Amino acid sequence: MCVAGCMDAVRAAVRREGVSRRGFFRGTGAGTVAFAATAVAPAGRALAGPAPGPAAAMLGEGRRVIDLTHTLTADFPTFLGDPAITFEDRAVFDKDGYNMKTWTLVEHTGTHLDAPVHFSENAAAVEAIPVETLVVPLAVIDVTAAADADPDHLLSRADLDAFEAAHGKLPAGCCVAMHSGWGKLATSDTGRFLGRDIDGTMHFPGIAPEAALWLLKERDVAGLAVDTLSLDKGASQDFPTHKIWLPAGRWGLENVANLDQAPASGATLVVGLPKVKDATGAPVRLLALA
Amino acid sequence: MCVAGCMDAVRAAVRREGVSRRGFFRGTGAGTVAFAATAVAPAGRALAGPAPGPAAAMLGEGRRVIDLTHTLTADFPTFLGDPAITFEDRAVFDKDGYNMKTWTLVEHTGTHLDAPVHFSENAAAVEAIPVETLVVPLAVIDVTAAADADPDHLLSRADLDAFEAAHGKLPAGCCVAMHSGWGKLATSDTGRFLGRDIDGTMHFPGIAPEAALWLLKERDVAGLAVDTLSLDKGASQDFPTHKIWLPAGRWGLENVANLDQAPASGATLVVGLPKVKDATGAPVRLLALA
Repeated sequence: MCVAGCMDAVRAAVRREGVSRRGFFRGTGAGTVAFAATAVAPAGRALAGPAPGPAAAMLGEGRRVIDLTHTLTADFPTFLGDPAITFEDRAVFDKDGYNMKTWTLVEHTGTHLDAPVHFSENAAAVEAIPVETLVVPLAVIDVTAAADADPDHLLSRADLDAFEAAHGKLPAGCCVAMHSGWGKLATSDTGRFLGRDIDGTMHFPGIAPEAALWLLKERDVAGLAVDTLSLDKGASQDFPTHKIWLPAGRWGLENVANLDQAPASGATLVVGLPKVKDATGAPVRLLALA
Repeated sequence: MCVAGCMDAVRAAVRREGVSRRGFFRGTGAGTVAFAATAVAPAGRALAGPAPGPAAAMLGEGRRVIDLTHTLTADFPTFLGDPAITFEDRAVFDKDGYNMKTWTLVEHTGTHLDAPVHFSENAAAVEAIPVETLVVPLAVIDVTAAADADPDHLLSRADLDAFEAAHGKLPAGCCVAMHSGWGKLATSDTGRFLGRDIDGTMHFPGIAPEAALWLLKERDVAGLAVDTLSLDKGASQDFPTHKIWLPAGRWGLENVANLDQAPASGATLVVGLPKVKDATGAPVRLLALA
């Protein structure tokens, strides 16, 4: 129970003792922005707080949290050209004493997950994806050289073989992520990210259907991830990789960010998937614990 | 490049070799639903796949992922009485070959995060919350007995002292979660969850402003969490705990689920916060790694 005058007293205490200057991050300071702009945060290190800081209990000293998520803005590129998200004020501080907005968005927007039902009549929707398939080993397949030479590059069986030759067999239950180099274009060069030709056809890399089929049959993989707009290459007209992968009860991740900062193997991916009933996909927070 | 006929061939292969029956979870089987309905999933155990399965690399054998998230449906209770979410079809399988929806929702809906700017003119919005404060030690304070006796119970300094006497000092950078027992009412007994009296005033437990102030000054806490609709008790008219906590640059979590399944200490909470620019809050996926 907060007795009359309590709020004034605690506000004065906060001002007097400067508690808002302590701890993890400042509400308004430039430090917050600067820190948040860095994708890789050292685990166990607080901005202005005492050691050992967060995540240390789980991750151990020297481990880190890598943010694989783009910031979602209204003008983030979308596959169909819809605005990525629009906002309406539901409450504003000056008038109501607090801030709150309403969002309208297509559920496949920004860094997001495709649920099995996205390309199926009745496969699993978002809320039915088992929670333990959202915390999985991450394998990052670097195809930047091939994609740089050919924007229509499809991650192939040969790319998977090269990964396994270097890093060992894909771990059970993993996420296989294509790192094409397109992630950094999403906000810096939207034209090249979409790659539209004179006919309007998009050109960006994707995952070969044959590679997806091999992963389904020969390896134990929870999901595929790409740093482009689609599991299929941009020029695809029939989405074969989507059609192989999702109805088989697997998920996909699109518009993944910062894959250049993740190790090829050894990290754990946590898929922060809002648990929206009957959703065919959702914007997610992707954190790699490395 | 998928040559003509390729899709037919791979579809036939999928049918023939039954790859859709292998691996993590079925797209349509009853097993998916049954499994997803269980909040606690054993780490390293796939539904129908080979050992060791996901999460094992990070968590180790015997560790588990606990889902602290309610499924978000249109009729999930909200503070202002708005629908929690509404949907429109953007594409439907029969007509378009795939499923996709548009959502409209108030950003403080379901299991969600309050950003500092929710109760401040210019504190940090969602995308500015440092990523390492989203992977933190979880401390669960059990106030079920007191809340059962008094729905207006406020988690107090005494409750925090009792926790520390039993479990040691709150770990640096942690999330302090109030487990009042209200979580299970959110979907089973909405009337009791809201606790409206004859005047319409809500009655449910919250966190005492004095306890929040002590945590700000004396401990290193990234966020508060409650299994009710609000950090403040339901009968609060002036939201003192929100006003102390959020403008100091900390986050809050509301409508947390399944806290009865989380250990009092020792788990790591991952806050799957969609990175929406300028948002004052967002529905989240909360996973405790225990």
